[in-house]
Amino acid sequence: MPLSHFTEQDHIYMARAIALAKQGRFTTTPNPNVGCVLVKNGTIVGEGFHQVAGQGHAEVNALLMAGTQATGATAYVTLEPCSHYGRTPPCAEGLKAAGVVKVIAAMVDPNPQVAGKGLAILADAGIEVASGLLESEARLLNRGFLKRMEQGMPFITCKMAASLDGKTALKNGQSKWITGSPARQDVQLQRAQSCAILTGADTVLMDDAKLNVRVDELPEPLPTQLPVRQPVRIIIDSQNRLTPDLALFSIASEIIIITTELDKSVQWPHYVSHIVVPEKECKVDLKIALRQLAQEQQFNHIWLEAGATLAGKMAECHLIDEYIIYLAPKLLGNDAKSLLNFAELTSMQNAVDLTINECVLIGNDIRITAIPR
Amino acid sequence: MPLSHFTEQDHIYMARAIALAKQGRFTTTPNPNVGCVLVKNGTIVGEGFHQVAGQGHAEVNALLMAGTQATGATAYVTLEPCSHYGRTPPCAEGLKAAGVVKVIAAMVDPNPQVAGKGLAILADAGIEVASGLLESEARLLNRGFLKRMEQGMPFITCKMAASLDGKTALKNGQSKWITGSPARQDVQLQRAQSCAILTGADTVLMDDAKLNVRVDELPEPLPTQLPVRQPVRIIIDSQNRLTPDLALFSIASEIIIITTELDKSVQWPHYVSHIVVPEKECKVDLKIALRQLAQEQQFNHIWLEAGATLAGKMAECHLIDEYIIYLAPKLLGNDAKSLLNFAELTSMQNAVDLTINECVLIGNDIRITAIPR
Repeated sequence: MPLSHFTEQDHIYMARAIALAKQGRFTTTPNPNVGCVLVKNGTIVGEGFHQVAGQGHAEVNALLMAGTQATGATAYVTLEPCSHYGRTPPCAEGLKAAGVVKVIAAMVDPNPQVAGKGLAILADAGIEVASGLLESEARLLNRGFLKRMEQGMPFITCKMAASLDGKTALKNGQSKWITGSPARQDVQLQRAQSCAILTGADTVLMDDAKLNVRVDELPEPLPTQLPVRQPVRIIIDSQNRLTPDLALFSIASEIIIITTELDKSVQWPHYVSHIVVPEKECKVDLKIALRQLAQEQQFNHIWLEAGATLAGKMAECHLIDEYIIYLAPKLLGNDAKSLLNFAELTSMQNAVDLTINECVLIGNDIRITAIPR
Repeated sequence: MPLSHFTEQDHIYMARAIALAKQGRFTTTPNPNVGCVLVKNGTIVGEGFHQVAGQGHAEVNALLMAGTQATGATAYVTLEPCSHYGRTPPCAEGLKAAGVVKVIAAMVDPNPQVAGKGLAILADAGIEVASGLLESEARLLNRGFLKRMEQGMPFITCKMAASLDGKTALKNGQSKWITGSPARQDVQLQRAQSCAILTGADTVLMDDAKLNVRVDELPEPLPTQLPVRQPVRIIIDSQNRLTPDLALFSIASEIIIITTELDKSVQWPHYVSHIVVPEKECKVDLKIALRQLAQEQQFNHIWLEAGATLAGKMAECHLIDEYIIYLAPKLLGNDAKSLLNFAELTSMQNAVDLTINECVLIGNDIRITAIPR
């Protein structure tokens, strides 16, 4: 259906479905965020969103709320209804059984198990179907899931924090605190939305970092009744330098250590697992590691919070999908430590080129969001 | 008069007077920017602004427009009317002679030759006087003039341009272009508003810079019929490294070279003068140099566009009043050149602390305006 055939009302209901879907962004991984609104005679008779994998999909929750009112209703869903038996029965069948007469999807599901089959089931049953309404907004919501489905790689957001002159620490290593408390709280919120936090052994060793979501530092209550999900902590440790006595391991939630060779002599807690990937220039081959994290571990969106070496290498290799840079209103001078370590550039043409998406004040700091050009 | 006694209409007329005053910001140096609005029976009967030193003050221009209508009018002026005979007769006398019945000034003139005497002349003549309406807006307009009058120092805006990771050039020196064309045009506009451009011999030698306002690169026509005034170019050259064959000297407009010892063997063009100031750590004593530029050369607002060494020294010595930093959406890595050279900081407490005033996109670049905390 051409976009111009969607009415203003259609847009309003789909925007509502997207707002509902967003409420799942702290919990649905590895599933996508999906929202659904059922409308009958100009009234919303049911709505819902997907909250956590293994539990009801958005459509199921909306149908539950609508009850018999679903008969004759139009369904607005942010993603094509699923067609396969996973942990729950297919939603396309559910909508059909409930007597829905029209289904508008924001986008087709790129999951090869669905990929148009959901809409086909509905159309075959004589239900009117359409897709493409607010598609770019719907894609933004699930950019991690989409990157994994479409490219077999996770979506990587690289977080950095520096002074206005691009320095992350003094020469003597002092770095607490460059940014202010509101910016650090914002980081907690971003971490909570990620499937995993990725860093290098350097950062863990230097800061004795725990890399968890500190619930008491979240700037606002999360839109979920579920306990805050701790992102999986992934540490790249090419030289097996991590030891179980580090603060990281004092928190009993999942940790993945990526290395080039397993040291079997160390006893790790039960929530620690290892991924062994091939070497590249004496280090973990990052591209292979990320592919494995997407394809085998099903990570959609990874929050990279690393030091200058790992972040620089990821940037150089064009493995970063988004940069979130917090700049504090301080100047630290040339002796302080630089944000990113690259191989020396000899031409401006080889710079990592970005486009600024957003630039806002968070407390006294600036938060810049940029994406590769 | 307490601020609460000013009416909404008073605010509107004063805002108009400030808008008028701004039109002089490319031309009035060393005089302040001043605007004047004359209102009679709820109608503006005359308005004007000060355009260039030696010509009519704002009040004179407004009175000229109002003619006999000035009798019985209220005058809104962004700065206390002057009381002394300078290049023009005192405006306080002019307003009195014209039969104005009330004068509202945004602020008292800090010029010791005026400093309340203008309002006193008016009050003595039975004219109702008040001041303090939109005072902070009026101060902002003339912060250069005010700093010179109040502290005997020029207001220094430090311009810097860097990549998002705070780098100004590659290790091999390549720096063209980090920022985009709209940001570079914005710099031309900022230069055009400054009394002088200050830099170091390093920058002149490295870039063979002309440091003039390139009129064809201005992003908008200036609000003046006068030809664009070229700011005086001031170069700090502690070691007498400049030579008359540099591109800088190919433009016949005023240049001041600041040095610690005059080399009398060099023949300079007639528009070049020298200031000799004492040495400090083998370099020009910056504080003494700036004081002289304010007190003897009457520079209000100086645009500092220097390399990492001079800008770093100025920042370290707390001689900068405002930073304008253009950040381009590029990453250049640790080998590239840092924005500011400081002596090594050993504690975060000693960082130069700023407050962000504004953060906007200029083309694809970010422009950050910050002031020392």
